[in-house]
Amino acid sequence: MDKIAVLGAGSWGTALSIVLSDNNYHVNLWTYKKEQMEEINKHHKNERYLHVPLPENIVAFSSIEKAVEDVKAIVIVVPTKAIREVSKELNKILNRPVPIIHASKGIEPGSLKRVSQMIDEELEHYNYDDIVVLSGPSHAEDVALRHPTTVTVASLNEEYAKIAQDIFTNDAFRVYTSTDILGVELGGSLKNIIALGAGISDGLGYGDNAKAALITRGLAEIARLGTKLGANPLSFLGLSGVGDLIVTCTSVHSRNWRAGNLLGKGQPLNDVLEQMGMVVEGVRTVKAAYRFAKEENVEMPITTGIYDVLYNHKEPKEIVEQLMTRSKREEMDDIAHLLYERYSK
Amino acid sequence: MDKIAVLGAGSWGTALSIVLSDNNYHVNLWTYKKEQMEEINKHHKNERYLHVPLPENIVAFSSIEKAVEDVKAIVIVVPTKAIREVSKELNKILNRPVPIIHASKGIEPGSLKRVSQMIDEELEHYNYDDIVVLSGPSHAEDVALRHPTTVTVASLNEEYAKIAQDIFTNDAFRVYTSTDILGVELGGSLKNIIALGAGISDGLGYGDNAKAALITRGLAEIARLGTKLGANPLSFLGLSGVGDLIVTCTSVHSRNWRAGNLLGKGQPLNDVLEQMGMVVEGVRTVKAAYRFAKEENVEMPITTGIYDVLYNHKEPKEIVEQLMTRSKREEMDDIAHLLYERYSK
Repeated sequence: MDKIAVLGAGSWGTALSIVLSDNNYHVNLWTYKKEQMEEINKHHKNERYLHVPLPENIVAFSSIEKAVEDVKAIVIVVPTKAIREVSKELNKILNRPVPIIHASKGIEPGSLKRVSQMIDEELEHYNYDDIVVLSGPSHAEDVALRHPTTVTVASLNEEYAKIAQDIFTNDAFRVYTSTDILGVELGGSLKNIIALGAGISDGLGYGDNAKAALITRGLAEIARLGTKLGANPLSFLGLSGVGDLIVTCTSVHSRNWRAGNLLGKGQPLNDVLEQMGMVVEGVRTVKAAYRFAKEENVEMPITTGIYDVLYNHKEPKEIVEQLMTRSKREEMDDIAHLLYERYSK
Repeated sequence: MDKIAVLGAGSWGTALSIVLSDNNYHVNLWTYKKEQMEEINKHHKNERYLHVPLPENIVAFSSIEKAVEDVKAIVIVVPTKAIREVSKELNKILNRPVPIIHASKGIEPGSLKRVSQMIDEELEHYNYDDIVVLSGPSHAEDVALRHPTTVTVASLNEEYAKIAQDIFTNDAFRVYTSTDILGVELGGSLKNIIALGAGISDGLGYGDNAKAALITRGLAEIARLGTKLGANPLSFLGLSGVGDLIVTCTSVHSRNWRAGNLLGKGQPLNDVLEQMGMVVEGVRTVKAAYRFAKEENVEMPITTGIYDVLYNHKEPKEIVEQLMTRSKREEMDDIAHLLYERYSK
């Protein structure tokens, strides 16, 4: 039985371990928490993160070195802020080429780096082209229950992307490949901004029409920025774009939607963050997108509006009024232009 | 005060009348029901369809001839099956060029004609190019409450599209223009098939991942068909495409979603239709799309699956399994190809 290492035992890392275990891999699941390791190895569960019994071929480790020994692939699923630390650790011990698949979403504040770029920077003898990202509309709970789920794996190394597709695919987990790692990573990260916006709209008591407008026009502007940064515009129409966006904006379980909802109801940012008690990625990502938009000279009225609510004390209601009363325009002016630019060459 | 005629006093016709009234137009609202006319003119309400007081500059008529006298524009908002009858009536009395804007969604079974084509066929002295469609994510209730709403108006006659944009635009109702009437009409009609599918998925007890996958891949296949029929693929990414799709697939108020939900729970089609007690457009549209797909040789696995559930006694669960175990593939193969074809010429 081939072995695969999964680094990170939160809900998503655990759910992906279950998929691999169902596919007859032996899974080495790494966690830095000793008690969690014992819970998994002795009781075959990980209660805090996922409420399902774990198969016995998932074995937890507290040493990264032991977890990655002789594995066929390494899956990294830690929070964005822990990516560099885990990669530094890997850098010390990885002495052969093995596919690295990451399933983390976010952009590093300050450096504006994506997750694959951070991993690449820390792994001295590893090629950026070989990193694979896995992303798409995927609540961990659904995956653990073997409910139908589809994701995209993207890498410049098509062979590695196919390996990732092969090890994860089964009857309940369908995997598509792509070569646009940039677009897939940006889609997964930027969607959290629009989820904040969807939450704000719902918090203000506006209805389904307003939320659908926000999602549609939000998608257009993240596609606009992503394309300017070099992504394929079509990635934003796929599972890691519109698919993930729909799940995040319409599920009350989404952390970003919940934070936006409280903001829309009039609570100040600090109170909201305190009340959430955990990282709300969109709150950081909106800063990155705002900087990107300025540097790249891309029009992003929704992102700018949300930035102003979070950091310039603007009233959410005022922002919505601004968005609704912009000059009249054709719907497809900008996206059509981008696609034309891309495909007419 | 300019006058505008709205033909059809259901919930959507009434909501659009409110928008026009807010914009200082005098609205002639036509209904064939005498009691409804009296309720509107005496009590300024239309309780069965919309629970808001109506402004006094909305006046109901039971004669189409009187309703369209001296109006600046005519808005048609009757069910698809009444389109020809109303157009025949108009044909007898319309003796000058006036913009016709329709806001009905559907495809005529048998002829496979869209609403604008039906109107054109019945109006002998009217130019097809001059018909305008209004479509987008818009529950009537939200519009009546002046909640923010965005829609698209599309016509080959850009001047008429701009007139439609001007008469409807206000601070709560934002209107974009487009020249792709084909794409906007197809998006509004075909989305009902995907809504049936979303309901089936929810009825089977599958989660958010499955529904998001279905919406995303469903969008890809209706864009594929639409493009083959001559629409601009980008229309399916706009308000009348993905925007309307999101509202219809995630709202429990959607008739098509509700019908799908009952099918997913195992009820036979006839029972479901009886229980709904009103037209479920998607049930008819899926027949049209199935025929289109065969004639145009377009791959539509989701549409075909739903057709098989409705008309070939296949089990919904079996269909989902089939969809999940198709051969492994790249995500963007087909859409990329279509766009390439379009923009590289």
